[in-house]
Amino acid sequence: MVRALIISADGFEDIELLYPYYRLQELGIDVIIAAPQQGDIVGKVGYKVKASMSFKEAVKQDFDILVIPGGRAPERVRLEAEALEIVRRFFKEDKPVATICHGPQVLISAGVVRGRRLTSWWGIKDDVIAAGGIWIDSPAVVDGNLVSARYPPDEPEWMRSFIALLRERKIL
Amino acid sequence: MVRALIISADGFEDIELLYPYYRLQELGIDVIIAAPQQGDIVGKVGYKVKASMSFKEAVKQDFDILVIPGGRAPERVRLEAEALEIVRRFFKEDKPVATICHGPQVLISAGVVRGRRLTSWWGIKDDVIAAGGIWIDSPAVVDGNLVSARYPPDEPEWMRSFIALLRERKIL
Repeated sequence: MVRALIISADGFEDIELLYPYYRLQELGIDVIIAAPQQGDIVGKVGYKVKASMSFKEAVKQDFDILVIPGGRAPERVRLEAEALEIVRRFFKEDKPVATICHGPQVLISAGVVRGRRLTSWWGIKDDVIAAGGIWIDSPAVVDGNLVSARYPPDEPEWMRSFIALLRERKIL
Repeated sequence: MVRALIISADGFEDIELLYPYYRLQELGIDVIIAAPQQGDIVGKVGYKVKASMSFKEAVKQDFDILVIPGGRAPERVRLEAEALEIVRRFFKEDKPVATICHGPQVLISAGVVRGRRLTSWWGIKDDVIAAGGIWIDSPAVVDGNLVSARYPPDEPEWMRSFIALLRERKIL
């Protein structure tokens, strides 16, 4: 079974976590949420979801797909060494990563942005550029293993592009 | 272009509106939200979405697909004559309708439940039965043009079944 990992924390942008969470399940994918600690995390708007494992646990396991939602969560996720290790491994192994909004803050801290084409929430555009990224103002930017989007209205195109990548790479 | 109509109101269950809203857009469908009045409506959890038309306006137009999300909104939607007229027309014309959670409250008031197999949030099961419905405890119940689900965790199966119906009927 294909396994996807969502890495997030309290303050996630609810619909940026829940849309890929349900969308990937719709494809028959096993979707696991990891957070700094195992247990409930609460979204910026108010949804509660269960993180079934901590980053410390997740880093020991293998996943096929990585999703990094936005909101205020990425500023918490980027402080966690194991979360950054997970991200680096996905990039090293060229495995699919989807991120949106403030999610690229985690990519910046993992040091995987240099030379990559990507987008993000406009408010962190300068950080993406300072980290060596090529920032593009588009609903969904695909660059190799990475599919990025700016904000919730981009989600249809974000997931359409990401699922196309999964099919291209025979993960689905 | 295929046109979908979402009928809702203040108090909608956020993810039950936003998931089909983005999911149908992902398929290239034009998705319109209608409410008692044109303008913003606010979800139970706190998301704000723009209803681009009132039910009075929507009833004058043609749509291919109808979605009725849950939350507290259906108790408001069911008070609106034009909303009920829209629902009745969808059933009369055997066009695809997706509903979830408290959404079937609108179906009850439209008088379209009798003899139909469907599911809903457990708390309104007895109302569905009293209205003549055959209530089934399953993540997604398909009966002709109608695809119903119980609550947010059913959404992957709900949309998978609904999109299968749209393909079967050559709407996609």
